Amino acid sequence: MSIDAVPSASSGVITLTTDFGTRDPFVGVMKGRILARLPTARIVDLTHEVFAHWPAEAGFWLARSYRWFPVGTVHVAVVDPGVGTARDIVMVESQGHRLLAPDNGLLAPVVSADAGARIRRVTAEGMARCGIGRVSATFHGRDIFAPLAAELAGGRVLPEQLGDSIAELVPSRIDAPTLIEGRIAGQVISIDHFGNLITDIDLQLLEGLREPRVHAGRLVLPVRRTYGDCAPGCALALVNSFGVLEIAVAEGRAADALGLTRGAPVVVLDGVGRN
Amino acid sequence: MSIDAVPSASSGVITLTTDFGTRDPFVGVMKGRILARLPTARIVDLTHEVFAHWPAEAGFWLARSYRWFPVGTVHVAVVDPGVGTARDIVMVESQGHRLLAPDNGLLAPVVSADAGARIRRVTAEGMARCGIGRVSATFHGRDIFAPLAAELAGGRVLPEQLGDSIAELVPSRIDAPTLIEGRIAGQVISIDHFGNLITDIDLQLLEGLREPRVHAGRLVLPVRRTYGDCAPGCALALVNSFGVLEIAVAEGRAADALGLTRGAPVVVLDGVGRN
Amino acid sequence: MSIDAVPSASSGVITLTTDFGTRDPFVGVMKGRILARLPTARIVDLTHEVFAHWPAEAGFWLARSYRWFPVGTVHVAVVDPGVGTARDIVMVESQGHRLLAPDNGLLAPVVSADAGARIRRVTAEGMARCGIGRVSATFHGRDIFAPLAAELAGGRVLPEQLGDSIAELVPSRIDAPTLIEGRIAGQVISIDHFGNLITDIDLQLLEGLREPRVHAGRLVLPVRRTYGDCAPGCALALVNSFGVLEIAVAEGRAADALGLTRGAPVVVLDGVGRN
Repeated sequence: MSIDAVPSASSGVITLTTDFGTRDPFVGVMKGRILARLPTARIVDLTHEVFAHWPAEAGFWLARSYRWFPVGTVHVAVVDPGVGTARDIVMVESQGHRLLAPDNGLLAPVVSADAGARIRRVTAEGMARCGIGRVSATFHGRDIFAPLAAELAGGRVLPEQLGDSIAELVPSRIDAPTLIEGRIAGQVISIDHFGNLITDIDLQLLEGLREPRVHAGRLVLPVRRTYGDCAPGCALALVNSFGVLEIAVAEGRAADALGLTRGAPVVVLDGVGRN
Repeated sequence: MSIDAVPSASSGVITLTTDFGTRDPFVGVMKGRILARLPTARIVDLTHEVFAHWPAEAGFWLARSYRWFPVGTVHVAVVDPGVGTARDIVMVESQGHRLLAPDNGLLAPVVSADAGARIRRVTAEGMARCGIGRVSATFHGRDIFAPLAAELAGGRVLPEQLGDSIAELVPSRIDAPTLIEGRIAGQVISIDHFGNLITDIDLQLLEGLREPRVHAGRLVLPVRRTYGDCAPGCALALVNSFGVLEIAVAEGRAADALGLTRGAPVVVLDGVGRN
Repeated sequence: MSIDAVPSASSGVITLTTDFGTRDPFVGVMKGRILARLPTARIVDLTHEVFAHWPAEAGFWLARSYRWFPVGTVHVAVVDPGVGTARDIVMVESQGHRLLAPDNGLLAPVVSADAGARIRRVTAEGMARCGIGRVSATFHGRDIFAPLAAELAGGRVLPEQLGDSIAELVPSRIDAPTLIEGRIAGQVISIDHFGNLITDIDLQLLEGLREPRVHAGRLVLPVRRTYGDCAPGCALALVNSFGVLEIAVAEGRAADALGLTRGAPVVVLDGVGRN
C-alpha cells in the first residue's frame, strides 16, 4: 500500500510516546501547548513509561501501534538522550500517518517495516514556519514537538514545508532480527505490565521455521497458542496480539521468574530433527 | 428508577476500566481503535490499575462510579482472565448507562444494586453487525470491546441489536455482604492510593446496626465520621465518599500498618450490650 | 501584564492537579462529573502524583505550568489535607487563567509571581449558584471542585458571582526563597521521574550572583549549562526548562545518589573571591 493511496487529511488526533513518566507535569504541559495552538486536538497517550533514554523501546511499540489509530494521525515520540545537542528532528510519513521524533533510531522500526515510508528532516525554516523560536535546552517536547504536531494536525503546515526528503534515518542501535540459516537472533525489547518479556521477533520470521524452539536464559521453549496451554508457574513462548514473540509464565511474572530484562538475547532455532 | 424513564441517547462518553496498567500501549491502542470509528468520542480512564485478573475489584469501583458520568455513557471494563476461551461478553443497561464486560462476574455489583438493570449477551450476529471479524486470542479490548463501544456510543447500533436479554450473569466469585442476625461479613476489595483498605460493605447495611464495631485483623474499631477524629497513627473505620466502609490509619497507610490486603475478611457486629 | 488586558473568555480546557494517584477511580469520577455538566470540556491531567498532603509541590508545579495552556483555562488543584474541615475554597485569576484550590497555601506561588493576580473566596452563595448542594466530607474534588470548574469553563458563572475579592491567601507553609546578602536559601520541592532534585530557586534569583555555588547535602556544585557538561555519575546543578535550579546526576538518579528528598535545604552562595 503506497502512501499516495491513502488520504492525507488530518484526523485531528495526536498521540504521545515518551519516557517522561506522569509524576511531573511535563506531559500535561505538552498538551497545554498543543491545545493553545489547536483547540480541537484530541490527544492520546500511547505510553510515557518507556525505559528512560532507550529510543528502541519507543520505536518498537510505536511501530506496532500507530496503524490502530485513524489515518491522518500525528504521532509524537520523545525519547531523547541527545536533547540539546545537534541531533536532528525527523518526520516519517507512513500509511497516511505522520510520525515525529528525534533522529536517534527511534523511528527505524517504522521505516524498516514500510517500504513506502518517506523520511523528512525538519529544517530551521520548517520550524520557523511553525512559529518556533527560542527553545529550551532540555524540553524540546514542549518547545518544538508540541508546536510541530499542532501545526501538522491542524493542517496549517504540510509535510513538504517542514523539510525535504532524506534517504535514511540514523540507524537504531539495535539490529532488527533476521532469519539466517535456520536461526533467528533477537532480544527482549520491553517488559509489560504483567511482567511478560516482549521480544522484537515478528511472527513472519517465525513462520520461516517449521518447529521453532525459543532459547532464552536457561530455558528452551516451544511456541504455544495461548497462556492457557500451560499449568500455573510454567514458562511458555507465544505470539502475542502485537504479532511478536513473547515469553510468559502462566499466572506469574516471567521477568522475575526467569531473571531476564531488556536487552537479553533470545534465539529461535528450528527444532526439527534436532531432538 | 426504571430504565424506561431515563433518556437513552448516547452522551458520546466512553469510560475504560482495565487491569492493563499504562506502561504499555494497550490502553492507547484501544483508544486509537475507538477514535478510528468514532472521531467525536470523549474517552475517560476510570482506572487501569485494577488488581490483575481480579474482576471483582473492577466491578466494585465501576458500580460505585458509573452514575457520576453523563446519562448515555458507555462503560467498558476488561479484566478478563478467560480471554480467548469460550466466555461470553455481556452488556448491562442500568440507569441510562451501558456497561460492557466479559461475563465473569465483573458486572454483578451493578446488577445486584439495580433491580431495573437489563442484561444482554452479545451474540456473534451482534458483533458482525459492528464489523468485528477476525480477532486476536489475547487482546479483546482492542479487537472486540473498542469497536462495540464505538458503535454503541455513536448510536449506530442499538443494544437490542447486540443480543437478546438474558436472565442472569455469571455470578461474582465474591458474595455480596449481607446483614444476618446482627452480623455483616464482608471483605477488603481494594487498597487505594493512600493505602486505605476499602471494603465492600455499604452504608445501607451498617445502618441496620445500632452501634457497629468493625473487626479486621487484630483490631476492633468503632465507625468514626472523618479522618480527623483520630490521632496520627491511630486506626479508624469510616464510611467514605463512595458510601462504603473503609479502614484507615490517620496520616498513615492502613494496608502496611495492619498487614491486611485484598480478600481479608472484615466483620461488623453490633456493639450494643457487648461492651 | 494586567488581568484586564487579557481575554477572559473560556478556552473550554480544564486541568487537574491532585495527590489522588490514578490507581483508584477518583480522578475518573471527577471527569465524569465535569462532563455531565459540560459535555464539551477538554480535560488535561497535569499530575495526580503530587506528594500526598503536600500542597507546596502542587502549587510549585502549577505556577510554572499554567501559562503554557490556552488563555481562558480553568485549573483545578486538590491537595487538601483539611478536607471536611472549615478551610475555604479560593479562586485566583492570573494572566487570563482561573485557578481553583483549597485555601491552604497551594496557590501562593501563583500569587507571589503575579502582582496583578486577583484572589476570591468562594462563598456558600457562589456554590449554590453552581447548584452545589449536599457534599461528602471527604471528596470535595467530585462534589465541589468539579462542578465549580465546569460552570466556570462553560461560562455559565462569572468569577465575581463566586465570591468577592479578598486581600490575601492563607500563606504557604514554605517561604519563597530570597536573595539576601549574597545568599539564597531554598529547598528541594519535588523529585522528578528521573530522580532529579527540583528546587524552588528561580533563575531570576541566581542572576543576582556572579558565580553561584550550590550547597546541597555534602556537595558544592557550580551551575552548568546542560546534563552533557558532566561525566556519567557526576553530580551537577543546572537551570531546567521550568526556569528553576535542579540538581542532577548525569545518567543517574540524584535523589538516590545524594540521599536527599523533599524539604532538604539548598543554599546558593556567590563563589567569587571565596575560591
